[in-house]
Amino acid sequence: MKRSFFKGRKALITGGAGFVGSNLARALVEAGADVTVIDNFHPDYGANVFNFTGIANKLRLVRGDITDRGLVAKLCAGAETVFHAAAQCSHVDSMIDPWLDLDYNCRGTLSVLEGARASPLKPSVAYAGTRAIVGAPLEMPATESTLPNPVDVYGVNKHAAELYGAVYARAYRVPFVSLRLTNSFGPYHQMKSGKYGILNWFLGQALQGKPIRVFGTGEQLRDYLYIDDAVDAFLRAGEFVAALATSPRAYPRARLAGEKIPYAVFNVGSGQGMKFADCARRIVECVGSKLEFVPWPPERAAIETGDFIADSALAGEILGWKPETAFEEGLKRTVAFYRENLRHYL
Amino acid sequence: MKRSFFKGRKALITGGAGFVGSNLARALVEAGADVTVIDNFHPDYGANVFNFTGIANKLRLVRGDITDRGLVAKLCAGAETVFHAAAQCSHVDSMIDPWLDLDYNCRGTLSVLEGARASPLKPSVAYAGTRAIVGAPLEMPATESTLPNPVDVYGVNKHAAELYGAVYARAYRVPFVSLRLTNSFGPYHQMKSGKYGILNWFLGQALQGKPIRVFGTGEQLRDYLYIDDAVDAFLRAGEFVAALATSPRAYPRARLAGEKIPYAVFNVGSGQGMKFADCARRIVECVGSKLEFVPWPPERAAIETGDFIADSALAGEILGWKPETAFEEGLKRTVAFYRENLRHYL
Repeated sequence: MKRSFFKGRKALITGGAGFVGSNLARALVEAGADVTVIDNFHPDYGANVFNFTGIANKLRLVRGDITDRGLVAKLCAGAETVFHAAAQCSHVDSMIDPWLDLDYNCRGTLSVLEGARASPLKPSVAYAGTRAIVGAPLEMPATESTLPNPVDVYGVNKHAAELYGAVYARAYRVPFVSLRLTNSFGPYHQMKSGKYGILNWFLGQALQGKPIRVFGTGEQLRDYLYIDDAVDAFLRAGEFVAALATSPRAYPRARLAGEKIPYAVFNVGSGQGMKFADCARRIVECVGSKLEFVPWPPERAAIETGDFIADSALAGEILGWKPETAFEEGLKRTVAFYRENLRHYL
Repeated sequence: MKRSFFKGRKALITGGAGFVGSNLARALVEAGADVTVIDNFHPDYGANVFNFTGIANKLRLVRGDITDRGLVAKLCAGAETVFHAAAQCSHVDSMIDPWLDLDYNCRGTLSVLEGARASPLKPSVAYAGTRAIVGAPLEMPATESTLPNPVDVYGVNKHAAELYGAVYARAYRVPFVSLRLTNSFGPYHQMKSGKYGILNWFLGQALQGKPIRVFGTGEQLRDYLYIDDAVDAFLRAGEFVAALATSPRAYPRARLAGEKIPYAVFNVGSGQGMKFADCARRIVECVGSKLEFVPWPPERAAIETGDFIADSALAGEILGWKPETAFEEGLKRTVAFYRENLRHYL
């Protein structure tokens, strides 16, 4: 795609030192954007200064928290597009401390929306949504109109954040787009915890010669997306949502509404279902190590969604997006990255 | 209906001094329940000690806040059914201070759910949901499976609270039922502000000889429900959800899921659409005073949902509930109450 839209454009990335955020930062720097990153470098999450290798002097890094309204307002005041990727991302942790999840995923998003609303530059917001909003899918493949059925507090709060976007788009004309990412993987992902990004976690375990532990039989289907494809969707969505500001279209999440508000939700996934255990097997084929099947820990079983496959046709139709990287190719690139750099992530 | 189910049952009512809560308290006291009320008596909300006239010595009143986790946990430890009606209820205020709304509607509900989860009595939770979850309805009449489309922060947070209920029902088997009330009216409602309960507000204005101000043309349809019918639905739902604890049925919000979790959502409305201006006219006919049509204030126009009518067939089918009080009859009773008692609400 042409990325000239972002040349010289003032982009703010929340959670910009993490997996999604830093991959976005890299692409935006390459596209010539004027990039500011805010990240709190929470030790349990994915932020890593190593993620800025080669681009550190081409962006402005602000260490701070998205729940700090004043700081976020100040940063939004200088932004034309806000990529909002800061989040508490662990399903399990959202059940252990639902209040913490609420702080990051709801209060944090309200900071961003209030900041965008007040900004003289009238920035658009592109939000890192998640398949967890749909949760245990009530239809398959899940579309953007599938009734959300989240199974954990994380999924509920990410859904609330996406709906705040609709409220601010309608009431204040803050252009907002949410990309509901499936299970994404690739370089620049944390390797300290298996609590998020399980494919990357498995890959890290295998590279360290440790066994890969699959819960249950691993028969559940997942929809894996290579991070470069997610980044491509974000850049397309960022351009699309900015255009909505001047010519809003009918709300593409639910065609029935017909209301012209600058808001949209898109699934962003491969559309391919792969068994979790098969994914683990491919990692073993690629890297070595071995599989172990262990019983589901109860705290994981309680929030397991079952099969999930996303229908991303709407993103194809409206954004011209489709996944370009085959799973095997994405895996190969990810393995190559971590063979070189794993030490920076342990 | 038979209300013997609640005889001797330990019932906790959050927001129990407010409109919905105190009407519930009255019915539960009459049914012989062992009633505890928690209310923070926030001066801007609907709590009023006068609401306990005649029942004050038949219940236990705790002054406290639902965001006080320790207190809520202690109260839940002694409850068999929790009627969770405490809330920030103003649509407009939720846009002025979204964080405050988040505190009451999300954090407060998490306190209740965590309290219920930890309680040795394994209480069921019956939640006062709202039509605001459906917002600007994507189909009419709206069912429980209509894709939510909230237009204000209040609607988003009430929706999140309802979905937390699903999460706790699934993960921890906390039985949870949400009743999505339409525009309810009746005795024991606050009269200090037009920010919530507009029909009651109009009635109070008319009784004081003040003009009734309708925004715009008042052509939008609303679904008005007399409070006694809402209370009847709560008692039926409270009995239903307790039975779900021992024999869960398939998740009645979305039949596709077929999952047996102790959770349900029901619309609770009259099913009749009445033009807002016609409602105001009937108040004038009944009480006197006059109508004034004034332009929409921008902060109200920004969060107006358009027409709304609820399809409450599911509550009929599963709870055996139907609205029994005609609008005119409800209005007559409400007028009679405030003719007598208005001074306690000003």
